Amino acid sequence: MVVGSVLVTGGTGYIGSFTALALLEADYKVVIADNLYNSSAEVINRIELISGKKPDFVQVDITDPTGFDKVFTEHPDIDSVIHFAALKAVGESGEKPLDYYHVNVYGSINLLRSMQKHNVYNIVFSSSATVYGDATRVPNMIPIPEECPLGPTNPYGNTKFAVETAITDFINAQRNNATKAGNPAEAEKWNGALLRYFNPAGAHPSGIMGEDPQGVPYNLLPLLAQVATGKREKLLVFGDDYASRDGTAIRDYIHILDLSNGHLRALNYLRANHPGVRAWNLGTGRGSTVFEMVKAFSTAVGRDLPYEVAPRRAGDVLDLTSNPTRAGKELGWKTERTLEQACEDLWLWTKNNPQGYRQQPPAELLAALKK
Amino acid sequence: MVVGSVLVTGGTGYIGSFTALALLEADYKVVIADNLYNSSAEVINRIELISGKKPDFVQVDITDPTGFDKVFTEHPDIDSVIHFAALKAVGESGEKPLDYYHVNVYGSINLLRSMQKHNVYNIVFSSSATVYGDATRVPNMIPIPEECPLGPTNPYGNTKFAVETAITDFINAQRNNATKAGNPAEAEKWNGALLRYFNPAGAHPSGIMGEDPQGVPYNLLPLLAQVATGKREKLLVFGDDYASRDGTAIRDYIHILDLSNGHLRALNYLRANHPGVRAWNLGTGRGSTVFEMVKAFSTAVGRDLPYEVAPRRAGDVLDLTSNPTRAGKELGWKTERTLEQACEDLWLWTKNNPQGYRQQPPAELLAALKK
Repeated sequence: MVVGSVLVTGGTGYIGSFTALALLEADYKVVIADNLYNSSAEVINRIELISGKKPDFVQVDITDPTGFDKVFTEHPDIDSVIHFAALKAVGESGEKPLDYYHVNVYGSINLLRSMQKHNVYNIVFSSSATVYGDATRVPNMIPIPEECPLGPTNPYGNTKFAVETAITDFINAQRNNATKAGNPAEAEKWNGALLRYFNPAGAHPSGIMGEDPQGVPYNLLPLLAQVATGKREKLLVFGDDYASRDGTAIRDYIHILDLSNGHLRALNYLRANHPGVRAWNLGTGRGSTVFEMVKAFSTAVGRDLPYEVAPRRAGDVLDLTSNPTRAGKELGWKTERTLEQACEDLWLWTKNNPQGYRQQPPAELLAALKK
Repeated sequence: MVVGSVLVTGGTGYIGSFTALALLEADYKVVIADNLYNSSAEVINRIELISGKKPDFVQVDITDPTGFDKVFTEHPDIDSVIHFAALKAVGESGEKPLDYYHVNVYGSINLLRSMQKHNVYNIVFSSSATVYGDATRVPNMIPIPEECPLGPTNPYGNTKFAVETAITDFINAQRNNATKAGNPAEAEKWNGALLRYFNPAGAHPSGIMGEDPQGVPYNLLPLLAQVATGKREKLLVFGDDYASRDGTAIRDYIHILDLSNGHLRALNYLRANHPGVRAWNLGTGRGSTVFEMVKAFSTAVGRDLPYEVAPRRAGDVLDLTSNPTRAGKELGWKTERTLEQACEDLWLWTKNNPQGYRQQPPAELLAALKK
């Protein structure tokens, strides 16, 4: 039985593809929209191999003003969107901010306008812990609750913040307008989830689905994975003079399967409880230092991985650890997988798929999958 | 001698037209771009009647992705933009927020992308005191300095805030990229002014140029003017139970000629001092209550204007009074006209132009102008 029909924008990307998988496994119908700018359509076959179900796929660019109108017209059963499509490199956003405003902000305005036109009621938005900025300022708000004042410190974070306000203003207006028109049943249909996540990590335990960064990866674990395969000589650790237990910066690494499950829970919650717009942190609540991550991934790989300490990067903060209490209470969600599992799953994916989705996975992994 | 060439977006609107006039009087060349959605091209004739100079006019919509490319290609001498084009009704923004995000935010992204492509270096942005939100919260920040934390409380304010961050990120990136490329002279050419203004009021003392709101006006003085001409039976005063000297809300009313002069000063400052991005309040530093304004305008009209007290409006705050010290110090700017002058000028404009720009002004005003 199909429980609902969901559009996943950016659904061939890392978090998007795992969320599409989680939705299919929970009996949602899934339409993936992606421009394949930084991802591969091959992931759709992997989703089908794992789940036994195939999502629909539409190649569409989020900045095409009529792209989503076409998608919603052709798929009139879609009543919810999980919105990942975006540019996501913090460093690049400082060099090319207008690309980020155009794709992330204008693209989202575009999507919301189409949702309004076609009465697509629910949106789950891929926001980021970046909207909090530096929560180690006075007063210290670590671990960060959703009530922490927002104050992004880079253009990427500014675009996520702008989209959070656009979604909030849009959903509130739809509800108020319907209420004023004497239609409270229509009003409560409009809902939005702002999911602020911390550092996604890991891969599918089957070893056939994982992160496939094009070009230079932005994040610690994909960089470590490249060191492990020899693509990269050593890891650069940016700063060992932070006020942490070993001097390196603290982040909250969350297994990609826990994260994608959080999206599913948030969507279910919107559809069942009609909260209006609500923000939830998706994190483990536990912080790990860079050195701890190097050690954990070295253990998974079975040998020490080389690193070198470099100066701090501008804009980096000491600590981004979540307080995930609200998601626990309201969504009945918590992380179930350990950091060690994330490292093992990432290494299984990395060593078996050195070309990412540009090559077929080893036969033994596919055979194991069928059992 | 022409000192520079400036594009004024929204240049047929209230503040835009007065700023175009101020620029022409200061020997700038002016190109006005407007879609005439909420304004009349007749104002261009009035600008010419007063200044003896005619701005160029291009009808262009800010959401047309190639509109500004065309303007900059046809006017390659433009090196600065003063950007007014926007939707501006706070109440409407709560009902139709996506229109506001589309026109105000996407429109501005569009403009900035064209500026980048055509090396148009300076932007003066029409922001608003609305970005401060409720500055009467703890700690009380009245009169509001530019350092007051930003926290808009309605969709209109959210769009102004988003554009402030987009301009800041854009100008900073242009400067950083040029510096990294070893071109500091190019870097300092990129500059932006965020002008946060309080309540514009008044008209040109000649009586032939003023605010010409289409439909129901949003602001106190245009509403009072309609009461004075009999278009409106009475003024509704929203709330007389605020913690002010007479119970009504306090705002900082600034004469339109002082405000337009502030734009000219800001542009001159960007071109001479290359500050990067800088925010300035444009206000008088003095707050007036609604009752005080009713009295002042009644005095200008020569009779008591009827009003009725109604409940507070959602989202209204007690006090929005500026601290204009920074603009005084850095721009050498201060307001020179009184509230009484604003009321007199508004009344002269209103009684002589009951149809706004849809009729020709009285011959005696035109004759007086020629002296």
